[in-house]
Amino acid sequence: MLKECFDNVRNQVPLVHNITNYVTVNDVANVLLACGGSPIMSDDPGEAEEITSICSGLNINIGTLNQRTIPSMLLAGKKSNELGHVVVLDPVGAGASRLRTETAVKLMKEIHFTVIRGNISEIKTLMLGSGHTKGVDADVADAVTEETLDSVIASLKKFAQETESIIAVTGAIDLVCDDSICYVIRNGRPEMGKITGTGCQLSAVTAAFTAANQKKPLEAAAAAVCTMGLAGEIGWKNMLPGDGNASYRTRIIDAIYHMTGDTLEAGARYEIR
Amino acid sequence: MLKECFDNVRNQVPLVHNITNYVTVNDVANVLLACGGSPIMSDDPGEAEEITSICSGLNINIGTLNQRTIPSMLLAGKKSNELGHVVVLDPVGAGASRLRTETAVKLMKEIHFTVIRGNISEIKTLMLGSGHTKGVDADVADAVTEETLDSVIASLKKFAQETESIIAVTGAIDLVCDDSICYVIRNGRPEMGKITGTGCQLSAVTAAFTAANQKKPLEAAAAAVCTMGLAGEIGWKNMLPGDGNASYRTRIIDAIYHMTGDTLEAGARYEIR
Amino acid sequence: MLKECFDNVRNQVPLVHNITNYVTVNDVANVLLACGGSPIMSDDPGEAEEITSICSGLNINIGTLNQRTIPSMLLAGKKSNELGHVVVLDPVGAGASRLRTETAVKLMKEIHFTVIRGNISEIKTLMLGSGHTKGVDADVADAVTEETLDSVIASLKKFAQETESIIAVTGAIDLVCDDSICYVIRNGRPEMGKITGTGCQLSAVTAAFTAANQKKPLEAAAAAVCTMGLAGEIGWKNMLPGDGNASYRTRIIDAIYHMTGDTLEAGARYEIR
Repeated sequence: MLKECFDNVRNQVPLVHNITNYVTVNDVANVLLACGGSPIMSDDPGEAEEITSICSGLNINIGTLNQRTIPSMLLAGKKSNELGHVVVLDPVGAGASRLRTETAVKLMKEIHFTVIRGNISEIKTLMLGSGHTKGVDADVADAVTEETLDSVIASLKKFAQETESIIAVTGAIDLVCDDSICYVIRNGRPEMGKITGTGCQLSAVTAAFTAANQKKPLEAAAAAVCTMGLAGEIGWKNMLPGDGNASYRTRIIDAIYHMTGDTLEAGARYEIR
Repeated sequence: MLKECFDNVRNQVPLVHNITNYVTVNDVANVLLACGGSPIMSDDPGEAEEITSICSGLNINIGTLNQRTIPSMLLAGKKSNELGHVVVLDPVGAGASRLRTETAVKLMKEIHFTVIRGNISEIKTLMLGSGHTKGVDADVADAVTEETLDSVIASLKKFAQETESIIAVTGAIDLVCDDSICYVIRNGRPEMGKITGTGCQLSAVTAAFTAANQKKPLEAAAAAVCTMGLAGEIGWKNMLPGDGNASYRTRIIDAIYHMTGDTLEAGARYEIR
Repeated sequence: MLKECFDNVRNQVPLVHNITNYVTVNDVANVLLACGGSPIMSDDPGEAEEITSICSGLNINIGTLNQRTIPSMLLAGKKSNELGHVVVLDPVGAGASRLRTETAVKLMKEIHFTVIRGNISEIKTLMLGSGHTKGVDADVADAVTEETLDSVIASLKKFAQETESIIAVTGAIDLVCDDSICYVIRNGRPEMGKITGTGCQLSAVTAAFTAANQKKPLEAAAAAVCTMGLAGEIGWKNMLPGDGNASYRTRIIDAIYHMTGDTLEAGARYEIR
């Protein structure tokens, strides 16, 4: 199943429109190329609808949102909905400012998202319509642990039902839920948190995977999460003496470049709850 | 000849003003440093003319154009023309939206470009004043092949004559033309297409090369294209097990950093038609 | 002393708000993570004050300033002053355009900066309220050499007194001054100048160091400068055949990732004047 989702990306080369932050945008473009997709970045309202129309998926990331790009997000998102394209929301830093929280909430009201992917703090903010975030990292008090797992999954399924979206929460344990099924994924390495943008990269990869697997978005989103986590493990194994977070960043994208459907199938560690 | 063009960049350290996209801007800056130039990025209308005035070349790339930066492109381009500076246009994604096509066309009307560099689809869009592009990659139907080579060259020479610009089309085969001479360049690797921004990098390098070789812009542009392609070959030879597109990105810039005029002269593979 | 400053960053994980240029922003984020801080990037006036309020330090870098981000710099800076947060100014390219010079001067009038860090040409521009800069690199005529050292230090101490800021000038010799004490630091490698953004990275690291050492900002700023310079030396030692400026960029951040307070204490080379 994961293999098929992965191979579809490589075979279909989905073009993904990204309205994303300028911090991690280069990695987002390179990871899309690495996984088999094709990236286009465009954030001006004057072309947002047209650009999204020639793509098969849209990735909206609010990491460095501003007054010019927010209207582009709305225009592109609505057009993508009209055209039946997949749309992913990465609510970076939701909870850290009213602008971020309100923008994320507004986007969710006006656009149907195929997948909403964030850390637990961001997703909680969206669930509660409020909250606070320590920057762009998950609030420790909100961590998903083995102890809190069942209750978190129940909340996420409810949120998935309400939003009719797949909810992907990434952290020490990754959860990918629709209203009834939750993939509990245990790939990845804690050191990935020492690189800026692994979350942004994952959201873009999720857009590519769901675009190439439109009939099974839950499985595709889970496959994307496993791909990123497994790449984190493979990249870590490839670290040489002296390598730090900057080299690790490169090695993770390289690992995705070399990944195959079979590698993914063999390396993915998940259960369904 | 290539050697002389290359050495002039190293000796003169041309300062290049870049109004470019935020996706690949870091690589653009580092590749300019690697080849011997010096980069400055600035895209606000409030300083575009002044910044360009202290430079010896201007590189305009419309990859993430927006309503604020388009006026800066026009201001900087006109000022550069006034001052006799070289100006390069990279019409990223021309054909993918009206905004891109119209902006590129407008820039060409109001600014004289020393070099226009793009993939065949972008250049065709500019030639036809219309067209469609699959994102930022060349439309396969428009590929330059051995079969289509002569007719493409004839068209490009005509376009060069009309625009009084050097036209550089990069892809599997690279073409660098003025109205009468075309360099047909066969350096490079197909894997370069799996890295975001090798085209953006080349445009910036072309600005540096033509700035440092103002009396022979055609040769300088051809030398820039050979440099980038040869760096792609050297970078590829330096790939280690596990390296993917992210490492390749680094190795190409590294290869330019270590390149010499002699290496370039020995490794360039071109004919003149 | 340096060790203690360094360890405080690792232990406190200061969240740093960056209003910075899009050229080097990814490296800025990764170097903050490498040194033990946590980055957040945000440049919209609609959230600048709120974002800065949840941080412990602010880093303002005018490298790609524009009409939308300048008000954000002012809002965030004033709010940080109100809250007693550290604020760092990196006046990239001050002197290269009136917009840059006037913005830097205006920021200095309306905001109290804990540290102002630039190359000697930028700092001279701020001192003189005018001047000219060759792009973003220090004007050679203005270089800090052993011959000019004493007079430069005297000027910087005076400037530190007037601005009540710590002044950090980086180049072949790095100087970190308050009104009475100057750290003369001789770490680093000339090849660091062939990478875009080592200065931007240092400014961000300086914000993290001063945020985590609020009672001794001079020592903290000096420790940040030593850290960056020493990382340049360690990164250089780790270079392999074929590595160029792009690899060096990665190796420097990696070196900071692996640095310890003890390594820093042992490797720092400075005197106090």
